[in-house]
Amino acid sequence: MTLAAAAPTLDTLETPCLLLDEARMTRNIERLNGLMAAHGVQLRPHLKTPKSVEVARRVMSTPQGPAAVSTLQEAEQFAAAGVTDLLYAVGVSPSKLDRVLALRRRGIDLTVVVDSIEAARAVSARARQAGDAIPALIEIDCDGHRAGVQPGDTAQLLGIARALHEEGACLRGVMTHAGESYGCRSVEAIADMAEQERSAAVSCAQAIRAAGLPCPVVSVGSTPTAHFARSLEGVTEVRAGVYVFFDLVMAGLGVCRVDDIAATVLTTVIGHQADKGWILVDAGWMAMSRDRGTARQPVDQLYGLVCDVDGKVYPDVLLAETNQEQGIIKLRPGSDAVLPDLPIGAKLRIVPNHACATCAQHDAYEVVRPGATEVVAHWERFRGW
Amino acid sequence: MTLAAAAPTLDTLETPCLLLDEARMTRNIERLNGLMAAHGVQLRPHLKTPKSVEVARRVMSTPQGPAAVSTLQEAEQFAAAGVTDLLYAVGVSPSKLDRVLALRRRGIDLTVVVDSIEAARAVSARARQAGDAIPALIEIDCDGHRAGVQPGDTAQLLGIARALHEEGACLRGVMTHAGESYGCRSVEAIADMAEQERSAAVSCAQAIRAAGLPCPVVSVGSTPTAHFARSLEGVTEVRAGVYVFFDLVMAGLGVCRVDDIAATVLTTVIGHQADKGWILVDAGWMAMSRDRGTARQPVDQLYGLVCDVDGKVYPDVLLAETNQEQGIIKLRPGSDAVLPDLPIGAKLRIVPNHACATCAQHDAYEVVRPGATEVVAHWERFRGW
Repeated sequence: MTLAAAAPTLDTLETPCLLLDEARMTRNIERLNGLMAAHGVQLRPHLKTPKSVEVARRVMSTPQGPAAVSTLQEAEQFAAAGVTDLLYAVGVSPSKLDRVLALRRRGIDLTVVVDSIEAARAVSARARQAGDAIPALIEIDCDGHRAGVQPGDTAQLLGIARALHEEGACLRGVMTHAGESYGCRSVEAIADMAEQERSAAVSCAQAIRAAGLPCPVVSVGSTPTAHFARSLEGVTEVRAGVYVFFDLVMAGLGVCRVDDIAATVLTTVIGHQADKGWILVDAGWMAMSRDRGTARQPVDQLYGLVCDVDGKVYPDVLLAETNQEQGIIKLRPGSDAVLPDLPIGAKLRIVPNHACATCAQHDAYEVVRPGATEVVAHWERFRGW
Repeated sequence: MTLAAAAPTLDTLETPCLLLDEARMTRNIERLNGLMAAHGVQLRPHLKTPKSVEVARRVMSTPQGPAAVSTLQEAEQFAAAGVTDLLYAVGVSPSKLDRVLALRRRGIDLTVVVDSIEAARAVSARARQAGDAIPALIEIDCDGHRAGVQPGDTAQLLGIARALHEEGACLRGVMTHAGESYGCRSVEAIADMAEQERSAAVSCAQAIRAAGLPCPVVSVGSTPTAHFARSLEGVTEVRAGVYVFFDLVMAGLGVCRVDDIAATVLTTVIGHQADKGWILVDAGWMAMSRDRGTARQPVDQLYGLVCDVDGKVYPDVLLAETNQEQGIIKLRPGSDAVLPDLPIGAKLRIVPNHACATCAQHDAYEVVRPGATEVVAHWERFRGW
């Protein structure tokens, strides 16, 4: 909330709030679009990161999609905004099929994901009952990270494929996600993981086709693997989400630089504990999230990197600890840098560990441009399920 | 969202969602009310945990308060609901004083917190300018945890007191919060911490009064210390928040039992990785938060304890890992328990690490009663700043 009627600026915004550097976002979008164009593969951006119609319109290749979502709330919100090609990229439970069907009756080409015969049969049964061959992808477990059929388990794969194709649903293909790519330690390792992701999906697609069943879609992706895949042969689409904003986890992986990170939290200095070398700010874990993704990386960035109000990083100055609505800024342990001398009321930006988690703590993006203090737009986010 | 017109039940609620066991909440409220009555001290419940008007009405001693809040958004929401005695319990930045004054003009007795001469002067200057002697408490650092004046630093303490009292604000007293009580390892240690918290606040109040300045309010509190304080002599009010719901961190500290925990997340089984001993559910970190508060306790509960749909804990069954919208349930490492055999679609409840953080991921409480499947009420939460 701002009391002033004039357009807000970095000085007048109430803090904490979420800033979005549109120029950096555009650069991130163009970078991956360029890579996908070079591979000749369709990008299906994952909208679970932005959860915003305005960002979605900038990240999708057309106003109708394609796009991926992580909740039916996202599917409903983006459908209302005109997106018609959506993948609900989390294994569907039978109780969610009513909402899936309601969206499909409105003309949305919404695809679901299953990884068991049990779930496939539930989708097929509901599809038969509704007279709508709900399209489904079979999830493949390319890296032991999450859900999915083991790539070598052809019996299970074909059992699911037949339960979809022969019992009422529409077998649309396979999908996988190399979540373990977040744990890679080099770009080379990410490229290897991309190949593992690709080959798992493509080999499963081949097994399905060899059994005389259809498999038009081969969907893979994570932000790291999407950026460093050497080949996407046999892949029909790539999914990625966090690349639109990037974050410290991605920078720590080498997927982006810190100054590619487009989403930051604006905060205000509220006090000092000079004896301890602390600066207190009004961004606690409510504003940052509790995500500490860089704790598992070689360089732990604690709750985030501290920048001046224009976004210039103070070397070795970290948001070190958080209470609900207070953060404690300290120097990185062992650093010989000097903490900046900041009065109460000074504004700072914090670069977050994990854009998906930090953005989810906020209801809107305050859109800013490099070197300018004016907020050029206010883009709402949604949430819930 | 529910598609059925009938009142929802645990079977028909869309998942993930936040359940509130009203009977447990009432028991928790009555327990601390009883302790405070025995001490003869006013309780000022901290509403940052519930962020709900319905819960606030049940936890406050009168519909007008008193209560504490952590954001001005909370102050505005509770003021709109009729609460008139509010403490904004986070160090105030000068830019927030316009909103403070706007609330005070509406008749809200809103008190702010400062811990520096710089902030005290800013409050006094704005108070003079507005013709409203904004009341302020001086924060004391009783345990090195966060903000506040060091208890032995009488020069600083009196400097702040005079900057408030003599320059335009209203010196209302002192406040402190023993945040380090969350790291205690026994009830005895918590009781010692409560005494440290009490004596820091009372000694500072005495120093202020000895200098001929007013100090009517001596405000202390955290959920652990509020429950185990041996004496509250000299204290005029106690603040506590998370006790209304409790959580696994509080259970790990010995402040409550697991079956006192009133807020849980309802989730649905969406898959299995039987070879790995995993059950996949639709509660990921978006539904649970990334809070892993028990990681620092002797028993790490990972992302939470898994219960059946009625809230009965499955021994040694944990929400072990989370993706954004998926959770992985596993047995506790080394356990010889057996994972329950749960079909896709089965409902479970997850007991969270930290009620403040988990509840903040949700927009409403679905209020339930023990042994009943009906949802008896839907209480909205708010958020933001």
